[in-house]
Amino acid sequence: MDNCLFCRIINREIPSKIVYEDDQVLAFHDVEPKAPVHILLIPKTHVASLNDLDSQHGDDMAHLSLSISKVAEIMGIKDSGYRVIVNCGKDSGQAVAHLHYHILGGRAFENNFG
Amino acid sequence: MDNCLFCRIINREIPSKIVYEDDQVLAFHDVEPKAPVHILLIPKTHVASLNDLDSQHGDDMAHLSLSISKVAEIMGIKDSGYRVIVNCGKDSGQAVAHLHYHILGGRAFENNFG
Repeated sequence: MDNCLFCRIINREIPSKIVYEDDQVLAFHDVEPKAPVHILLIPKTHVASLNDLDSQHGDDMAHLSLSISKVAEIMGIKDSGYRVIVNCGKDSGQAVAHLHYHILGGRAFENNFG
Repeated sequence: MDNCLFCRIINREIPSKIVYEDDQVLAFHDVEPKAPVHILLIPKTHVASLNDLDSQHGDDMAHLSLSISKVAEIMGIKDSGYRVIVNCGKDSGQAVAHLHYHILGGRAFENNFG
């Protein structure tokens, strides 16, 4: 997607602080961190949101799900604990229309869920 | 897992308000809702947390990921928007050691992520 911010990050057209990458996912620092550690984990395949997933994305989503703890380990929060947040649509505050998993850690989290 | 609360819910040993079920996942109302809609979506295969996923769970995680919007649609929040939260470990406040995806909607969410 030529006009997608995260596709442009994947394609190195826009710089980011990358912490992990393989052939299916990219993980990089959120530019407006809400915790001492705040990473965005995204599939390289463009998909706008959770609402837009279908069976063609199964393997990507399996791989992304299994990559979350790998990113947490790289960032030193696997054992202390972390929160994963995925926003979808207007009420949630989803800001970029490319599916992204927020991985946050380095502090305790409230149980009101934001 | 005989002593796992969510496995006991899956096995109907403990009652819950179920909203969706198939052979791989179960979705039911959280008993302490943090939003007008607050559903827990869990894999029927017992796995304690995101940290405990490995390649044997790939198909379950693909299916669970694709089931999120199906649950949102059933609950009437697919179009208005929703937030998905997965807690892992001490800092996050994970309360039950069976992987569970919180699906919350029916209100707007803060961008501090809790």
